[in-house]
Amino acid sequence: MHYASRLYRMADNGLGAWEIHHIATEKRNRGDDVILLTVGNTDFTSPKTSIAAVRQDLAAGRTHYSPSAGGRPFREAIARRHTRKTGQAINADQVIVTIGAQNALLTAALCLIEPGDQVLVPEPMYTTYPGTVAAAGGEIISIRSPPGNRFHPLINEMEAAITPRTRAIFLATPNNPTGAVYTTDELLAIAGLCRNQNLWLVSDEVYGELIYEGQHVSPSMLPGMAERTITISSLSKSHAMAGWRLGWMIGPQELVRHAGNVALCSTYGVPTFLQDAGVAALEQFPNGLPELRAAYRRRRDQLCEWMETVPLVSFHRPEGGMFIMLDARATGLSAYDFAKGLVLQEGVAILPADSFGESAAGHLRISLGATDAEMEEAAMRLSRYAKQIAR
Amino acid sequence: MHYASRLYRMADNGLGAWEIHHIATEKRNRGDDVILLTVGNTDFTSPKTSIAAVRQDLAAGRTHYSPSAGGRPFREAIARRHTRKTGQAINADQVIVTIGAQNALLTAALCLIEPGDQVLVPEPMYTTYPGTVAAAGGEIISIRSPPGNRFHPLINEMEAAITPRTRAIFLATPNNPTGAVYTTDELLAIAGLCRNQNLWLVSDEVYGELIYEGQHVSPSMLPGMAERTITISSLSKSHAMAGWRLGWMIGPQELVRHAGNVALCSTYGVPTFLQDAGVAALEQFPNGLPELRAAYRRRRDQLCEWMETVPLVSFHRPEGGMFIMLDARATGLSAYDFAKGLVLQEGVAILPADSFGESAAGHLRISLGATDAEMEEAAMRLSRYAKQIAR
Ligand SMILES: Cc1ncc(COP(=O)(O)O)c(C=O)c1O
Ligand SMILES: Cc1ncc(COP(=O)(O)O)c(C=O)c1O
Repeated sequence: MHYASRLYRMADNGLGAWEIHHIATEKRNRGDDVILLTVGNTDFTSPKTSIAAVRQDLAAGRTHYSPSAGGRPFREAIARRHTRKTGQAINADQVIVTIGAQNALLTAALCLIEPGDQVLVPEPMYTTYPGTVAAAGGEIISIRSPPGNRFHPLINEMEAAITPRTRAIFLATPNNPTGAVYTTDELLAIAGLCRNQNLWLVSDEVYGELIYEGQHVSPSMLPGMAERTITISSLSKSHAMAGWRLGWMIGPQELVRHAGNVALCSTYGVPTFLQDAGVAALEQFPNGLPELRAAYRRRRDQLCEWMETVPLVSFHRPEGGMFIMLDARATGLSAYDFAKGLVLQEGVAILPADSFGESAAGHLRISLGATDAEMEEAAMRLSRYAKQIAR
Repeated sequence: MHYASRLYRMADNGLGAWEIHHIATEKRNRGDDVILLTVGNTDFTSPKTSIAAVRQDLAAGRTHYSPSAGGRPFREAIARRHTRKTGQAINADQVIVTIGAQNALLTAALCLIEPGDQVLVPEPMYTTYPGTVAAAGGEIISIRSPPGNRFHPLINEMEAAITPRTRAIFLATPNNPTGAVYTTDELLAIAGLCRNQNLWLVSDEVYGELIYEGQHVSPSMLPGMAERTITISSLSKSHAMAGWRLGWMIGPQELVRHAGNVALCSTYGVPTFLQDAGVAALEQFPNGLPELRAAYRRRRDQLCEWMETVPLVSFHRPEGGMFIMLDARATGLSAYDFAKGLVLQEGVAILPADSFGESAAGHLRISLGATDAEMEEAAMRLSRYAKQIAR
């Protein structure tokens, strides 16, 4: 049977990296003691107030279709949050509710990109980006963010990559996998490219509440950018609500009107009773769960401290996000071989990061979303493993 | 700013028809007594067992990411249901969970259709179809289903419409808006076209449990069709769970593997705690809510009876689904003018059906999802309105 050709480009979704995760889960299913630091899961639980909102809505029979773009209460809560964070007065018509940030990314791609269009994205990048852009018929041009530049993007290379087919720049700050938080100067330079070359900026801010150094700058607040920026976020990371699939996109009203037509065909709306849970989460924790942020910061600091004296491996102390990048280049092993040895010998699963992009060659991504005790145990095993390689 | 050209084709989503709905809701908000029979909502409530499953899952902290294609329990429950209904032995790898049937329709379009491809669809058709196919870059070729043919499709015209660019046939049986339930002979003829011309068949069966005459035939069970049929359904209509956004698609394993890659970029999965609610619904009500089906049938029969003596208007007694088509051609009014007069004079909102396709010109769609009392009151007002036109 015949399939659409986009599927073959979408199949290249970096899932090769997940082989380590599969080895680990199989090991665990066999009863072995395995610490999983591969996925972006969290040990924190979703807010009780959100759970209460769902119970109340279901009891009240709020189980009918929601407007495709989302109901007013959640859209208004998101608009208020954006205004508070950016100082920009926006209204609910500039917000659309989506099934997590991922669905917002697809919606943005379908709104902006057509076959043959190019999108510039700093790599390492989140693994769904190539597939998402390919779904719309576009192609990603990767911009290097080398470890030597603290995984920040080389903006001169970004400028040089612009062609008449370039439509948009997609970026995530804080970044997954690197934890880089782009500086105001970097974002101003990127904004300048967008304005001069008439490009859209799609700003993925799902880690925007998880900042440890510097501050989160939402590019939509930079001069002349509100009209060409799509701001995407969700409650997945900030509120430990990944499984709820509550996200949104914010942009100019015309864009959001188009996005509403896309939503009609893409999801036909998000459950009302989940949106009400989202309102409750934003009201009670306007800046995300404070104890979650504190825990990730503490784990980041401890991991860096514990590993300081370990031979051959070092950490890039992330400025934000929920991951930490381990530099294993000095071991002489590929990231994959390093990870495979670690999971087989020590039962610690971390993710080879090359699948996020070439700049991450020789690096591995470690999630900060396990308990303190698991993190400590993982650090101990990791150090034993590295010492054994060094011998 | 530049937008993708697909958006202009997606904006043509038949929502013009909804003007009547808006007039009605505004009238209601002003305090007027309005009966809304426009949308496909229901007066029934979602199963208690599903609500209990959500409460239990949330209390147990099942709030983490689900696999993008859905968890095994729900996929297995859907596979068992398909086997029971069709006699076909399928397994969970042939099933993917989606955000309602709508998200399955988009996923199917992205899997099968590329720019320039054509899709044959009998009209009148559900209003999201053109946008959904346009999202993938395709174009719909409408096939007439005239009232004189009981709104069943003219299969000779379908055959004549096939070109080298035709990739798939999309159809919904029972149909929205017409309630036509395609016969085995019709489906065999369509299946023959698919086999001979190597086309995919996308079978939208969201009304498959709502059958009043004849029986529901799932085209995937016809000879040689399992390998080229995508069966789409959801709990929205059968289980009064429209707001939960629980749907699925079933197809050959290769298709479902591709669809899993699309799901990764489209939704990143459906909440686990909702999937468990879906399992509970399918287990307790394997054929949908019996009292819901009974009520729709009763309302259909009563409406037809009450209206028998009314001048100028008549009903097409639907064979299935949750709508009834009113034929207002003899009034000399357009469907829109008929609807507008009805909502303004009598406060009854029904939907001009022309936006579903030309074959429905002069017809109006009435939802069976209001209470018995509302249906009776609506029938009384409708008859008063028609008598006044006849004078
Ligand atoms: C950079 C980035 N964007 C988007 C997402 C998707 O988030 P959501 O759960 O809101 O769909 C993730 C999830 O890991 C991510 O890391
Ligand atoms: C024919 C048809 N297909 C699909 C849908 C979408 O259903 P769901 O709620 O499962 O997305 C509808 C909803 O009205 C419909 O009438």
